[in-house]
Amino acid sequence: MQLYSYFRSSASYRVRIALALKGLPYEYMPVHLLKNEQLQPSYADMNPARLVPLLKDGDHALTQSLAIIEYLEETHPQPPLLPGDAASRARIRALALDIACEIHPLNNLRVLRYLVQDMGLSDEHKNRWYKHWVESGLEVVERQLAGQAATGRFCHGDAPTLADVVLVPQIFNAQRMDCPLDHVPTVMRVFGECMTLPAFSGTQPSACPDAS
Amino acid sequence: MQLYSYFRSSASYRVRIALALKGLPYEYMPVHLLKNEQLQPSYADMNPARLVPLLKDGDHALTQSLAIIEYLEETHPQPPLLPGDAASRARIRALALDIACEIHPLNNLRVLRYLVQDMGLSDEHKNRWYKHWVESGLEVVERQLAGQAATGRFCHGDAPTLADVVLVPQIFNAQRMDCPLDHVPTVMRVFGECMTLPAFSGTQPSACPDAS
Repeated sequence: MQLYSYFRSSASYRVRIALALKGLPYEYMPVHLLKNEQLQPSYADMNPARLVPLLKDGDHALTQSLAIIEYLEETHPQPPLLPGDAASRARIRALALDIACEIHPLNNLRVLRYLVQDMGLSDEHKNRWYKHWVESGLEVVERQLAGQAATGRFCHGDAPTLADVVLVPQIFNAQRMDCPLDHVPTVMRVFGECMTLPAFSGTQPSACPDAS
Repeated sequence: MQLYSYFRSSASYRVRIALALKGLPYEYMPVHLLKNEQLQPSYADMNPARLVPLLKDGDHALTQSLAIIEYLEETHPQPPLLPGDAASRARIRALALDIACEIHPLNNLRVLRYLVQDMGLSDEHKNRWYKHWVESGLEVVERQLAGQAATGRFCHGDAPTLADVVLVPQIFNAQRMDCPLDHVPTVMRVFGECMTLPAFSGTQPSACPDAS
């Protein structure tokens, strides 16, 4: 398998964690977003959305990080990232989507660029926008985790799941942008647990081959 | 089952379509977003994210439309909304996420409100923002559909899947906001096919009990 990734892309980081948790080897193919390498025909022909990540598995070119991880879960079920019964799996997926649909899309690079370049927002307003969605979005995740019996050492139980795979890259983004995190103690406890595992720490942005 | 829904919420509409395609009966529980009913404790206690939809199935309170639909797929597999092998399912999920992660989150009510009320954007700029993400996002979907052998009468093959379930509500939003759609002929052909089916037409916003 080949993973087309950008070290700082949190959607790429999700897939790097999932591959590592499942112990799957892959070739790292850097796509430099700030240099717009995702727009070059060699990449854009493979991925009409011109986003990272993309996973090549034989003839299949797979896009959208959550779809890629579901694919890995189906083709390499162990260890499970969606364990338990249908209701458990629904809780795990909902936590992942609380981040992947409610926080991350509002703060990715092309959106921030559009706010400044096309909507005329100042850098100060842009930063306020960024922090607002991280702060309010993580507060929702905190409410889902705190005091729920299903929450364990990790977001759901005592082994990492898809929810943790999506949470950790979001916290990296939040820290890089100096977002307040004191109001989400359960989130940060789980983040700390995750970072003790090589699958999370060894695939973090600064550990990537294209880190700069 | 009880579905907490707002007639105009496209995330709610996704779940209404999925329930209808699977022939599952449910009680319709209206939550009026413009009246902020989602913030009332009776609802917010069930759903910490204070968003619609929410599906109650016995003791389970399920949130996030895509997680709810995956749950329905696991508990009521027929007819399948994620048919085929792992690669087919990945293509269907990626199409759904191209809309659910790249278009819809940028244009939902709370985001538009924040742009105007907190970022000081004019209504004209807000509308430009809205149309930009619909237009560019659907163009990506068009590129994924047009000329691909896996595209059939619907987004993937000749029966409706999760991709169609997510696509149709997005087109309703686009039409309501007068977004240009001439540049996405394959998308619109599939939309037309879907709307011949009662599962899509009979659950549309104007057909909901709380439509106004």
